[in-house]
Amino acid sequence: MKSGLRKITGRSRFLTGGILLYILVTTTPVWSQEGGSVPTAETLKGEISNVQTNANILWTLIAAALVFWMQAGFAFLESGFTRAKNAAHIMMKNILDMSFGAIAFWAVGFGLMFGASQGYFGFDRFFPSPDNSTAEGQWEYTFWMFQVVFAATAATIVSGAMAERTKFSGYLIYSVFITALIYPIFGHWAWGNLLVSDNQGSWLAGLGFIDFAGSTVVHSVGGWAALAGAIVVGPRLGKYSKDGKPRVIAGHNLTMAALGTFILFLGWFGFNGGSTTTADGSVPRIIVNTFLAASAGAILAMLTTWFKFGKPDVGMTLNGTLAGLVGITAPCATVTPLGAIIIGMVAGVIVVFSVLFFDKIKVDDPVGAISVHGVCGAWGTIAAALLHENLFLGVPFDLGKALLIQGLGVLVAFVWTFCTAFVLFKTIAATVGLRVSEEEETQGLDLGQHGASAYADFV
Amino acid sequence: MKSGLRKITGRSRFLTGGILLYILVTTTPVWSQEGGSVPTAETLKGEISNVQTNANILWTLIAAALVFWMQAGFAFLESGFTRAKNAAHIMMKNILDMSFGAIAFWAVGFGLMFGASQGYFGFDRFFPSPDNSTAEGQWEYTFWMFQVVFAATAATIVSGAMAERTKFSGYLIYSVFITALIYPIFGHWAWGNLLVSDNQGSWLAGLGFIDFAGSTVVHSVGGWAALAGAIVVGPRLGKYSKDGKPRVIAGHNLTMAALGTFILFLGWFGFNGGSTTTADGSVPRIIVNTFLAASAGAILAMLTTWFKFGKPDVGMTLNGTLAGLVGITAPCATVTPLGAIIIGMVAGVIVVFSVLFFDKIKVDDPVGAISVHGVCGAWGTIAAALLHENLFLGVPFDLGKALLIQGLGVLVAFVWTFCTAFVLFKTIAATVGLRVSEEEETQGLDLGQHGASAYADFV
Amino acid sequence: MKSGLRKITGRSRFLTGGILLYILVTTTPVWSQEGGSVPTAETLKGEISNVQTNANILWTLIAAALVFWMQAGFAFLESGFTRAKNAAHIMMKNILDMSFGAIAFWAVGFGLMFGASQGYFGFDRFFPSPDNSTAEGQWEYTFWMFQVVFAATAATIVSGAMAERTKFSGYLIYSVFITALIYPIFGHWAWGNLLVSDNQGSWLAGLGFIDFAGSTVVHSVGGWAALAGAIVVGPRLGKYSKDGKPRVIAGHNLTMAALGTFILFLGWFGFNGGSTTTADGSVPRIIVNTFLAASAGAILAMLTTWFKFGKPDVGMTLNGTLAGLVGITAPCATVTPLGAIIIGMVAGVIVVFSVLFFDKIKVDDPVGAISVHGVCGAWGTIAAALLHENLFLGVPFDLGKALLIQGLGVLVAFVWTFCTAFVLFKTIAATVGLRVSEEEETQGLDLGQHGASAYADFV
Repeated sequence: MKSGLRKITGRSRFLTGGILLYILVTTTPVWSQEGGSVPTAETLKGEISNVQTNANILWTLIAAALVFWMQAGFAFLESGFTRAKNAAHIMMKNILDMSFGAIAFWAVGFGLMFGASQGYFGFDRFFPSPDNSTAEGQWEYTFWMFQVVFAATAATIVSGAMAERTKFSGYLIYSVFITALIYPIFGHWAWGNLLVSDNQGSWLAGLGFIDFAGSTVVHSVGGWAALAGAIVVGPRLGKYSKDGKPRVIAGHNLTMAALGTFILFLGWFGFNGGSTTTADGSVPRIIVNTFLAASAGAILAMLTTWFKFGKPDVGMTLNGTLAGLVGITAPCATVTPLGAIIIGMVAGVIVVFSVLFFDKIKVDDPVGAISVHGVCGAWGTIAAALLHENLFLGVPFDLGKALLIQGLGVLVAFVWTFCTAFVLFKTIAATVGLRVSEEEETQGLDLGQHGASAYADFV
Repeated sequence: MKSGLRKITGRSRFLTGGILLYILVTTTPVWSQEGGSVPTAETLKGEISNVQTNANILWTLIAAALVFWMQAGFAFLESGFTRAKNAAHIMMKNILDMSFGAIAFWAVGFGLMFGASQGYFGFDRFFPSPDNSTAEGQWEYTFWMFQVVFAATAATIVSGAMAERTKFSGYLIYSVFITALIYPIFGHWAWGNLLVSDNQGSWLAGLGFIDFAGSTVVHSVGGWAALAGAIVVGPRLGKYSKDGKPRVIAGHNLTMAALGTFILFLGWFGFNGGSTTTADGSVPRIIVNTFLAASAGAILAMLTTWFKFGKPDVGMTLNGTLAGLVGITAPCATVTPLGAIIIGMVAGVIVVFSVLFFDKIKVDDPVGAISVHGVCGAWGTIAAALLHENLFLGVPFDLGKALLIQGLGVLVAFVWTFCTAFVLFKTIAATVGLRVSEEEETQGLDLGQHGASAYADFV
Repeated sequence: MKSGLRKITGRSRFLTGGILLYILVTTTPVWSQEGGSVPTAETLKGEISNVQTNANILWTLIAAALVFWMQAGFAFLESGFTRAKNAAHIMMKNILDMSFGAIAFWAVGFGLMFGASQGYFGFDRFFPSPDNSTAEGQWEYTFWMFQVVFAATAATIVSGAMAERTKFSGYLIYSVFITALIYPIFGHWAWGNLLVSDNQGSWLAGLGFIDFAGSTVVHSVGGWAALAGAIVVGPRLGKYSKDGKPRVIAGHNLTMAALGTFILFLGWFGFNGGSTTTADGSVPRIIVNTFLAASAGAILAMLTTWFKFGKPDVGMTLNGTLAGLVGITAPCATVTPLGAIIIGMVAGVIVVFSVLFFDKIKVDDPVGAISVHGVCGAWGTIAAALLHENLFLGVPFDLGKALLIQGLGVLVAFVWTFCTAFVLFKTIAATVGLRVSEEEETQGLDLGQHGASAYADFV
């Protein structure tokens, strides 16, 4: 712990200094033209800039802590939506994909994403350990921290879609590869220029692709990898009847799922707001937009299920909140509040039909991760063009071109992620194995994979 | 995401600039009397002010995020204190009152509360969409965000008192009205001048009414609306025996209730500390007072039940924490730590007897919301006069006048809120309906209202 | 609530002022050598310093809120790892040790720890109520808030090791004594100089003892007190078979334990990062190191159990995360990222063997608190020397001397804490009683101590 005294005496010293200097003031030029010992305008300007930099660092770190907290949200959402017999296993997956992800992103991922570009990916800043005494080093630590929790988010999204039948070891191997390779390389194309300005491999950024906080970079990448994973691992036992109709496999704890949603919602203020990496007046509208879109998403998903099924559905409403959040992630900095509400509303409707669609085509996604993150991420990215504030404020905006670029980004994310993840999962399935035995799946993965039960003393 | 590079090069540029300017410094007046290209004192003063404004914005937004988090706290407190068969329904209520509330407060409530006054309420700033490039616009977004989570808090308090028998649709309609009308209009009287300084309708503020963070504006308003709701909807089936004696209906998960309490406690640091809307030295004592009052409330409620019932009661202790928090909300900025402890202690005793009182007069409040928020909110508002720091620091303070004004505020809040909420609930009861059928209440609202069970796979 | 208007008009006023002053600028020297009404360089320097001080205050308070949140983490970790019949009781303990601790630390503990030294402990600043209008007073409130949550952490660590058989009243008495006496006096030796610079009683600090955020001061002190408590109170009924072999007593909810771990992990960013008490570039590497060490701890604990028992153990993995966090707490500001990873890895292995060791020697610690906090705290303190960044950066560093001083601190913490806590627990056992009756232990402490059940409606 540093001495807090510094602060007090620092100020006291100034006060004393103020009195002492009063005499000087009356006798010598305060703002000395000869560059004397009193502070110059440039020195003061630098000091002001330092205080602002400090604020930027702290805001970015606080936002990173909020995004970190989303890991707990994903763990609870997934566990609540699934069965009691797999609950402890899901906690293990979520803690360890983040832990392995942190080490992998430190070792390799960050360098591929933000290192100086070798054409299509970065290639330095591996195992980063910058000089902590320089402003550049301090910023690199700050930026790394914010980015690592994003990478962990992309990885953990997959977990939900593959829940209740995936082998623990296979899952861990996968999560290292997404955090170290799949996510960072696409990320380089869209965001690689955020640390090194002339990163020529960041070609999507160069085209003007808008994905402020990652509807595509984080959520769609996670969602499309989840799609590949769900396809390769196959549906859970009993999910489809013999005539191919999907059955409902109820989760074991909707209050846990709701807690997960609240946690994710809270974390998203850091996810979107922190993507400014600046503590200034650009943040508030982003936060407001995030709140409004999530609210609209929840309401519309609720109403959609009410009209469609006769009763407002709990799980879909929770996913509606998340759909709104994913949708607003790309456009949060470039739409008006009304635009944010519209984006959330559309996302809330989309997510319901998307979940039904994937259920129908026999992609078994226990938590709806593909729909929430993949599909609504794509919607949000397109919406960043469709509902761009310039269109409403009378600022010139080439909507056609913007739609093309946004669409290109969405498409590239899908092709890159789905293909690489598909190959990865197939390779894991063919080697260490991706799926547990039928017996183990029936018993539950808590027992089979960990020799435990989440609720041993309870049930 | 913005480029973090800006920060690094921003600082580097300054360093370079410093070297380049060194030559200028020695040849031309740094603090040019002709207003040259070097920064003037006024420019620097403006830049300093901007950095402080940025800090104010960020602190207010972080505090808003903490207050948002209280929504999860309310959901878990309420759900834990009630039965398993209603747990998912309670999650739905809490997520959707906030979601509808956000849209309603954006559309109407904010304008009524903080718009330019038309005598008794504001009347502009509806559907706010201010210019994000101006300092005023950025602040309005910041302020809106902080206020909307306060409005959502007032609305959600009601949920607990009406738990386990209220129709979902009726509840949603109510929550829109409190966020759009009932809360903002009273709020205008007490706080309407916080955005527009000459809001003449803010007559309570004009009298000198002290309610720094909302013991009355938020908590009592929520609590008295809860009282009206609990009366109109009536007690739960089985709450009273045939001879009119109250029965205990045990909750299903005290660890959930405890989690809710911890969440609320954490959120309250934002609730009270953020009400400064300023990142400065006025915040720390507020946070300290908040912590001490909550601690005293928990201890005294625990001891009260220990003496009265022979054992320290879990639910009452949790409510004692909250009672202390509600009590310190109005006076948090104007009492000493000892004052805060006394306020918390009294609140901790009051809440126990108040809960017993409402139980006795057959107002069935499953979570004690009326006592915690309504009654302890009133106590905190009176305490802001009774224990004002000036009384202990020898600063002139007209206690009699202060008590009158505080009492007036408490009374007006009660009359306004109880009457309007009573009419509202009666109207809902007579139209869409406020209460579920006996059969549905017995089965549980999860099944009846949502066709689900919170713990489908578990039980 | 303060008027947000101040900010807007504050800025507007400046703009207006700028225009008005423009006239002055052209007619009088802006940077008046006569010390006129325009700001002087010294005034501006003071204003900049004030903004930085405000940032320091806010960061320290936000960090304190995160550390506060760890209380919920401890409650959930402990409750999840133990049986359902004691769940509500554990919530009560955790809320009330914090509540009593806050009052006790305000009354006595803070003064003993940070008051002007009387040789071996501080002795003023009891019942602190500093002047809120001065910078010193504001800082003292800020610093108190950060310190009180640390003290509460040390106290609550003990709770886990004594879970499921300790009398509520005895526990409360103990927790007051640790927060008021045992923790502050050792804390004075290591950290007492943080508020008053010439605290001669802070002899460990004077020697150069490195414990940046409290591996020893907080965690080992908590852990060794837990060891004394677990010994005095004895093992739970049924923990050891007649031939002395330990049995597994499974916890009732591993998802709760996982939530507790996530909460603690999040809170630790405040614990370590906030220990700078400064909002500047020294924070980011601390946060990064914290994240990496925790990740490494989780991975290594998981792998250790996988190799040793054939399956990756859930509870041990959670404790591995915490072991990494405890380990990095002392050295977080003085090691490189690679150092942090190594520290976490070692901690992750140590914690597994330490838990097995204490189990074997019949110290029944239901949650592993002694191993996580006591043993890994000692490891982290030694590691602050062993892996000091200077050793890797070619900066002169006397490793032998550093190891001696670190070892001395570890030893002194053990001797002081274990002895005083042992006497305290023995005294409580001989007077009010420390352990519940066999019947009550079998029934569960929820029923016996509180006449309640955590899951009354559920089971």
